[in-house]
Formats: sequence, structure tokens, C-alpha cells
Amino acid sequence: MDNKLMLMIPGPTPVPEQVLLAMAKHPMGHRSSDFSAIMAEVTEGLKWLHQTQNDLLILTTSGTGAMEAGIINFLSPNDRVLVGCNGKFGDRWAEVAEAYGLQVEKITAEWGKPLDPAQFQEKLEADSEKTIKAVIVTHSETSTGVLNDLETINRHVKAHGALMMVDTVTSLGAYNVPVDTWGLDVVASGSQKGYMIPPGLGFVAISPKAWEAYKTAKLPKYYLDLGKYKKDAAKNTTPFTPPVNMFFALQAALRMMKAEGLENIFARHARLTQATRSAMKALGLPLFAADEAASPAITAVIPDTVDAEKVRSIMKKQFDIALAGGQDHLKGKIFRIGHLGFVSDRDILTAVSALEATLLELGYERFTPGAGVNAAAKVIADLQ
Amino acid sequence: MDNKLMLMIPGPTPVPEQVLLAMAKHPMGHRSSDFSAIMAEVTEGLKWLHQTQNDLLILTTSGTGAMEAGIINFLSPNDRVLVGCNGKFGDRWAEVAEAYGLQVEKITAEWGKPLDPAQFQEKLEADSEKTIKAVIVTHSETSTGVLNDLETINRHVKAHGALMMVDTVTSLGAYNVPVDTWGLDVVASGSQKGYMIPPGLGFVAISPKAWEAYKTAKLPKYYLDLGKYKKDAAKNTTPFTPPVNMFFALQAALRMMKAEGLENIFARHARLTQATRSAMKALGLPLFAADEAASPAITAVIPDTVDAEKVRSIMKKQFDIALAGGQDHLKGKIFRIGHLGFVSDRDILTAVSALEATLLELGYERFTPGAGVNAAAKVIADLQ
Repeated sequence: MDNKLMLMIPGPTPVPEQVLLAMAKHPMGHRSSDFSAIMAEVTEGLKWLHQTQNDLLILTTSGTGAMEAGIINFLSPNDRVLVGCNGKFGDRWAEVAEAYGLQVEKITAEWGKPLDPAQFQEKLEADSEKTIKAVIVTHSETSTGVLNDLETINRHVKAHGALMMVDTVTSLGAYNVPVDTWGLDVVASGSQKGYMIPPGLGFVAISPKAWEAYKTAKLPKYYLDLGKYKKDAAKNTTPFTPPVNMFFALQAALRMMKAEGLENIFARHARLTQATRSAMKALGLPLFAADEAASPAITAVIPDTVDAEKVRSIMKKQFDIALAGGQDHLKGKIFRIGHLGFVSDRDILTAVSALEATLLELGYERFTPGAGVNAAAKVIADLQ
Repeated sequence: MDNKLMLMIPGPTPVPEQVLLAMAKHPMGHRSSDFSAIMAEVTEGLKWLHQTQNDLLILTTSGTGAMEAGIINFLSPNDRVLVGCNGKFGDRWAEVAEAYGLQVEKITAEWGKPLDPAQFQEKLEADSEKTIKAVIVTHSETSTGVLNDLETINRHVKAHGALMMVDTVTSLGAYNVPVDTWGLDVVASGSQKGYMIPPGLGFVAISPKAWEAYKTAKLPKYYLDLGKYKKDAAKNTTPFTPPVNMFFALQAALRMMKAEGLENIFARHARLTQATRSAMKALGLPLFAADEAASPAITAVIPDTVDAEKVRSIMKKQFDIALAGGQDHLKGKIFRIGHLGFVSDRDILTAVSALEATLLELGYERFTPGAGVNAAAKVIADLQ
């Protein structure tokens, strides 16, 4: 049976029917007052979700485009930046910075382990000349399911004075990221994640301090020049044609998120994460990230006696559930279960029960049938 | 009565119902074989539409992002470029080139007039040292409704050897742009135009000669680095998360375009253009561009005895037809009728009859009621 696909990957995430239908409305002109009204509403909604009064800009890009914009608008050639690298996305931001001729110093951790805030502290405290202009960190490292300790790293960055630039692609809308309370300068994410809409929009929140740096920043830019977006956003419009149907989708999704409420959204993601992790433990499947560093968006499993790709293949063919595989050197070694965005308690039970069936089919015998579902159910009951 | 909007602007253009419904399907993972199959099909379809065997790359950007990518991937700081400027978009490409530190020489014409190919010839023939690296031209200047003589300009560029970079945002899919026959090196456009889908995708066709220049080009880039897209397109995938629902839409639209056939598509746009222009003449409304330089996508009208903004306002309020206004210094002076993409003969009759009603309401008396509709109908009958 086809066409009953269930997405349990870290993006695109599942999209509610009412969002899909909103997106299917006929486009309108993007220079119309009708569109400006939608832009005003979604900008306000995004600020609510980001817990910020900062500018919240909407780009026609993937999350990578948004993050690149967040980096290049506030820096100049040869500026020194610290980049946290403990997965594919941390590495990507280092590549972006290098592509633009910045002086990149990487603070690394093994894939699957969180970044050590003390290493940032050390570098920053040693920099009495204040030559470090920005610190770039991936909050939830999608490639490994690790949540970095942004709050502590940010505290060290604040003490130093550099700009704090954060990839929140798979944390925003799933985990508490109080942008203003923490004083994050650049916060970038993408639509196909916690936002419950398809890919095609990037979001960047910019602090006044970052705008100060913008004035003297010299990296070349045009399409990604955030100054243009800021100027036009003040009039509820965009410098370049926006994907109007994606805005319809965003409007519908933000209304749903407001109805659920921030605390409930965060609590749900915490519950889904814990239920998934408890189930994996009950099934004897090793988790790639430790509990203390568990991403609220994705759980990576590194099975030792069963083939990760065979698990994914049967989950897809037999049960039409898409799980993600490993990236780069983790290809074939891990599988990743997404529980981000429009995912319910029921979806976790579904995924775990299908995983149990898959394990049985693969002859994996290190679990009591039903143990995974039971463990997930217990978490769901306890955390309601 | 609301919600019966008819788009007669140069973009977003009208979207067929089956395209909207395709777009409303639930997303799939972009790293799946199902998505790769769609990407293979739409890439092949785009090559057919571009009449090219060159690489055809799909970006998550507006048309501006695609054009910027087309410029910056093949040049280095201080490279000398000629930019044709006779409207808002020509000016924009000069701004992009300047933002990246290129040496820009503008070849200008008054807004509403076409670029003079002889001026390109003169500059190019004088450049015996071959310091001009690229010539950048907007084919259909959306802001004025002028079609530049790309074929002749390109002939001069070929004789010189510089790269020919073209903005075909409102000509591709409306007018014959035989990319390989003409040997165009960079051809950029956006989805919300002749492609009959909403905004959100940019397209760039790249010649082997441009790829040669890519090898030594030194402008910084990452999200817009076309080398990454080329490498991944060979495996029917993308370097960054693509807007999968837009690909569903593109697949549906390209199937419709193939069913109609290239020659029929071009003939339809020629007929719509001529019908619109004949109607305006019959109504005594001055056209902004001459017949010889008429864009196949848009007709700009510069009324002398009636207020352009009042026309647009009544067309919108009374008849729910969106016309475009003037941009920059043409604001309030012209109105523009889009006839690009999913537009039928009937739509032109509808727009012209509503325009006649609007003119009557405004007390404009320089026409015989019915003359506009009759003129359009005559063209439609003659050109079937």
C-alpha cells in the first residue's frame, strides 16, 4: 500500500492537513495590502515563538541560507570567529566562514558528544584584545541528536562581548530558546522543522548589537543582505518576491502553535524525546547521545547487533515510516528518529511498535516483545 | 464578493488548480529515492523548456537569488562587466555586481526603450585586450514591458568571447529562448512566472564555458555556490533541503507545459500580447513600450488622461483583478497588465472588458464602448 507515508525524519517534518490546505490557496500579489497583513501576522507570531522583540526576518532560503546570512551580514574578511563543531552542521558553519575568508578556530567534540562550554570560556577569556568577533554554535546538532549547552556557552560569550550566532534549526519550536533573555544576537532556523510547514523559508532573528556590527561589516552580499529585509519588513514587505503560499502555510501553523502554547509545545517535545529514548533502552538499542545532551528533535540510535540500514529499509517498505540514516562517516552506522514539529504521543507509539516488528523480522532477540511500546507508554502516562 | 482574485500581474502568475493540489500533498523526505525520481523528471523538463543540454540547477531562492548565483559563481573581484540597464531589473544586476566589487560599466537606455545592441558591439569591439569578462542583460524587463534584443546583443558577445549572462525571469516559458542554439552561458529565472507555479524556486542554466570560468572564479559563496548544486544534481539531489512541495508543483506544471508544447506556448503568449496591445490602442491608451520591443509577459500602459492608480484601484475593488503599478520613478504613472504563464485568451477578454467598465466609471470618454474587447477578439480570431 502506497501513499501513507509517515515522516519520522528531522525534516521535512509532518505537516498538518490545515496547513497543506492553506498552502494550496491561489497565490496573491506580494505587493498587496492583503499580503502585508499576512506578513505582519506571521512576523509577530515568529517573534512570539522566538520570545524576542528583535527583528525577525523571513528569507526564501533553506536553513543553511538563513544561517549563512546570519554569519556574513555582521562580519568582515579576516575577522576571527570561534565555531563549535561536533556534527555535520557545526562543520558546515565552519565551511561557510572559511568560504568568506574569516579566520576560523574550531572548538570540536566527537560526533555524538556535546561541545564543552569550558573550552569556549578558555578561548574567550584568553582573548583580552577582543579579536574574536563572533561565536557560532549549533544548538541541536541534527546529524547526531546532540543538544549543545547553548545557555552556558552563551554566558561565556556575553562575558567576552563577541556576537553569539546560533543555528537553532532543530531546536526552535521544540525547546525553550528565550532569545531576549539569553541575549542571542543571531538566531537562524528553517521552516521544515519545528514550524510544521514544508521547506522553503529561512528565519533569522537579529539583535540591536548585531545591527551595530552590520554598519561596518564588509563581506559582500545582496540576496542575503539582511539590511534590505529589515528595511522592507518595517513596511511588512520583502525586498525580493517571497513564496506567498509558504506564508499562507506559516500563518496557519503559527495559529496552531499559539493555540497549543509555548510551554505545552516544549513539554510535548520533552515527552516525545523521553518516550523515544526509554523505548530504545527497553529494546536494548544503544543511544548515540547521552541523556544529558539529548536533542528535543531527534534521537539517534547506534545499533550494535542489527544493521541500521536494514532497520530503515524494513520500516520504510513494510510500514511506510521514513527514518533518517547517518550522515558522512556515520552513514550506515546510525538511524535517527525524528520527533519534531507536528508529532503526537500516538506517533511515537506507532513508530516504536513498527520498530519492534522490524526487529523481530530481522531476528534481533535482545528484547521482550512489547517492552519498547510499554516503556514509551509509561513515559507518556507519567509526563501528561 | 471576496476570494475570486484574478492575477494579471507579472508574478506571482495564475496557478492551475492541479498544480495547487499537487503542492498540497504531504511532503516526503528529500533524501529519498521517491524525491530523486521527481528531481530527475523536473530537471529533464526544465532542460526541455530551456532547449538546452547544459546543467539546469534548481535553487531555493527568488529569481534575484538565481541571477545573483549566476553572476557571482563565474567572476572574481575587479572583473570588468557590461550591464544593460533600461529598467528596475537591469539596475538591480548592476547593484549586485557592484556589491561584489566588480567593475561595472552600464549600457543604458531610457526606461520604456530597448537597449541598443550597437552600444554593446562598440564596447566589445573596442576591448581588444578582452578585459570584459561578462555581459549581463535582462531579456524581458518586467518593470517596463520591454523585450531587449537578446539575440543580437548575444551575437556581439559571442564574437568577443565574454560570458553572456541573462535574466530570463519573464521571458522563459513565454518566448523562444533557445539556450543552446544561441549559446547563452548563464540563464536565470524564477518559478512564479512562465512556469505557472508559486514563487519559491530559482532556476539557472549553465554552459560548459561558464563552468570553465567557475574553476578560477574567486567571489565568496556557499549557499549560492553552484558547484555544489551541480555535483549533487548529478545524483538527483540537492546540497541543501529543497522545498519539496514546490517540486511537486513544478512536476505538475511541466507536464502541462509538455502537453501544450513549446510552439503553442510561445504562440499563445504572442497572441495574448498582441490582443492586449490592440485593445489598449483601440481604447486610446498609450503603450509604454513600442510594438517592436513588446515583452511577451507584460504590457505597460501610460495613460495620459486617466489616473493609473485609480484604474488599478477600481479594477481591484470592483472586479477583483490585480494589475501591477509602476516601480520606482514610474510609480503612479503606469499600470501593467500581466499575460504570463497560465493565462488564456478568455482572460484577456475578461481583463479588457473590466478595464472598459473601469474607464467608463472614471469618466474617460476617449473610446467607443466595446472597442477594446472587439480589438482583442479580432487578434484572437486572426492568430488562432
